Amino acid sequence: MPERATLNSVARQAGVSRQTVSNALNSPELVSPETRDRVLRAVEEQGYRANRAARQMRTQRSQVIGLRVEPVRDGVNGVVLDRFLHALTHTAERHDHRIMLFTAADADREIDAYADLVASVGVDAFVVTGTHHGDRRTTWLAEHALPFVTFGRPWGAEDSHAWVDVDGATGTETATTHLLRRGHRRIAFVGWPEGSGVGDDRRTGWRRALRRAGLPPGRDVAEPDGTDSGRVAAARLRDGGDAPTGFVCASDSLALGVVTELRSRGLPWDAVVGFDDTPVAAFLGLTTVRQPIAEVAVACVQQLQAVLSGERPEPVLLTPELVVRLPQS
Amino acid sequence: MPERATLNSVARQAGVSRQTVSNALNSPELVSPETRDRVLRAVEEQGYRANRAARQMRTQRSQVIGLRVEPVRDGVNGVVLDRFLHALTHTAERHDHRIMLFTAADADREIDAYADLVASVGVDAFVVTGTHHGDRRTTWLAEHALPFVTFGRPWGAEDSHAWVDVDGATGTETATTHLLRRGHRRIAFVGWPEGSGVGDDRRTGWRRALRRAGLPPGRDVAEPDGTDSGRVAAARLRDGGDAPTGFVCASDSLALGVVTELRSRGLPWDAVVGFDDTPVAAFLGLTTVRQPIAEVAVACVQQLQAVLSGERPEPVLLTPELVVRLPQS
Repeated sequence: MPERATLNSVARQAGVSRQTVSNALNSPELVSPETRDRVLRAVEEQGYRANRAARQMRTQRSQVIGLRVEPVRDGVNGVVLDRFLHALTHTAERHDHRIMLFTAADADREIDAYADLVASVGVDAFVVTGTHHGDRRTTWLAEHALPFVTFGRPWGAEDSHAWVDVDGATGTETATTHLLRRGHRRIAFVGWPEGSGVGDDRRTGWRRALRRAGLPPGRDVAEPDGTDSGRVAAARLRDGGDAPTGFVCASDSLALGVVTELRSRGLPWDAVVGFDDTPVAAFLGLTTVRQPIAEVAVACVQQLQAVLSGERPEPVLLTPELVVRLPQS
Repeated sequence: MPERATLNSVARQAGVSRQTVSNALNSPELVSPETRDRVLRAVEEQGYRANRAARQMRTQRSQVIGLRVEPVRDGVNGVVLDRFLHALTHTAERHDHRIMLFTAADADREIDAYADLVASVGVDAFVVTGTHHGDRRTTWLAEHALPFVTFGRPWGAEDSHAWVDVDGATGTETATTHLLRRGHRRIAFVGWPEGSGVGDDRRTGWRRALRRAGLPPGRDVAEPDGTDSGRVAAARLRDGGDAPTGFVCASDSLALGVVTELRSRGLPWDAVVGFDDTPVAAFLGLTTVRQPIAEVAVACVQQLQAVLSGERPEPVLLTPELVVRLPQS
C-alpha cells in the first residue's frame, strides 16, 4: 500500500513546491495552466484530499475574518481597496474563511468594532488596511492576542506583526527609470505631504532613480490627493524655471490632474505616470504603476493561516509592475 | 408623568413621519440637516431610546446578512455594485446587522452557498443582486422560507417577494427628453441585446420619450456591454443614412465607446448620455444617469427588517437622476 497522500507527496510527484500545490488547489489564478494540470494529476493519482471538516473541528474557529470598509468608496482611487475586498473574499473562501464587513469612523471606533465583532458574532481574525505610523489599531489587536495581518507595513516597527505590502518605492523607481530611458532629464514628483508612510515611500523610489542616473534631485510638489491638486501642482511646476518634462505621481488622481493641466496648455502628456491603474487611467491611456492585488490577498490569507496556527510568518513585500500605455486622446 | 417616548411621539413633536424619524436616527444622509436637528431635539427632550439589545433578544437572530460579490469587479461598470456594497454595509450596521460576503460562480453555486451560510455561520437573511427572468435563486429562497430582499425587480413576477429597484426606463426617458430639449431629433439608443430585464427597461424609456415627442422610432443598436461595443455601435449608426446626433446609452461603458468613436471622427460628443455615473464619466464630463444607491441600500435594509418581522412590504422603485455635464476635453 502506498504511503498516505500528503501535500509533500503531491509536490514531490508534480515536481513543484508545497506552496505551488497549495496555490494550484486554492488559488489557481497564481499558477500556469500546465502546472495546475500537473498538480491535479498528482492529486488524483494519489487520492490526496484536504480535509476541511477535520481542520475546522481541530481549530474550533468560526473561520470569519473581519474587514473594515469605508462608508462610501468612490472616485478614482478607492478602486484599489475595492479590488482587494473582492480578491480577499475570493481567496479567503477557497481557504474556508468568510469575510465579514464592518465600518468605523476612526481608529477608536475601529477598535471598539474589533471587540464587538469578536464578542457578538465570533469573528476570529482581522485584515487591517491603511496602516500608518504609530497605528493604535495594531497595538490593540496585539495586546489582546487577536490574530491579524495588515495590508500595509507597520511603518517604523517592521518586525512587530504579520504583514503584506507592495513595494511602492520600487514602483516609482521603475516609473522614473522608464521616463529616463525615454530621454527625460527633468522629472518631477507629484506626491502627498510628508509624513504618510505610503507617500514617503513612493517619493523615495523616484529620488533613488534620479540619483542612480547621476542627476540632481528633481522638483517635488506635495499636495493632498485629488485631481485638483494635480492640476495645481502641474501649473506650479510648469510655471517655474527648468520646467519638468516628466511627472511621476503618487496616485492616478494626481496624475489625471497633471494630465488635465498639460492638455489645457496644449502640451503632450505621455510622460506622466500615475499609480494604481484605475479604470480612468486605462480608458485615457495613462501609464501607471499597478499593485498586484490578487497576490496581496493570497499572501494575506496565507499569513493569517500561519498566525492562526501559532506561527510567526515572514512579512511579504510584493513588487508592483509598470503598465505602459499610449495616450488615447 | 409624560407618556413613554416612542417613534410616534417623537414624530409628532418634530412634525415629521415615523419613517423620517427612523431615517434621521439611522440614515441621516437621507434627511436635511434641519430636519435631523428637529428630530434629535425631540429625541433628546423626550428621552427616546431605541432599544437595540431588547430587539436582538426578541428576534433571536444572528443579524448577519449574506451578500454575494463577484471574484473581481473592475473596469467601468462594476462600480455600481461596489457602491451598493459600501452603502449596504453602512446602513445595515446602523440597524445592527452585519454583512457577510461570499462568492459563487453561477446560480446553482449561489444556492449551495445560501444553504451553507445558513447552516455554518448562521446567516439569517440575504440581499440578492442581479435578478433576471426566471431567477432560480429567489425561487429557492422563497421555497426555503429564508428572508431576503432583491436589489432588482423579480422580472415578470412583480409581486413574488420584497424588492427594491431603480426605474431605469424613467432614467433613459429623462436622458432622451434632455437631448430633445437641446434640439436633437435623431436620437439613437445604444443598448444590450434584448432579453435582459434591465436592458429592455432602459430601452423602453428612450422609446417612450420619442413617442411622446411625436417622433418616429429612433435607431437602436444592441451590443454586449463594453467600450469596444460602443465604438462599433457608433460607427454603424454614423455610417448609415440619417445618422443620429444624440445617443442614449444603457451604460457608461457603451457611452464611452460612442464618445471615443465620435472623437476619432472629429465630431462633438456632448449629446452622448451614459448610465451609472462612473468615475470615468465624471472625469471626462460625460452626462449620465445616476442611480440613488444610498437610498437603494436604505430601502433594502428596511424591506429586510419588515420581512424579518413577518410583514410583506410594498416594493420600492426609486427614480434615478440625470447628471448633466459639459465635456472636459
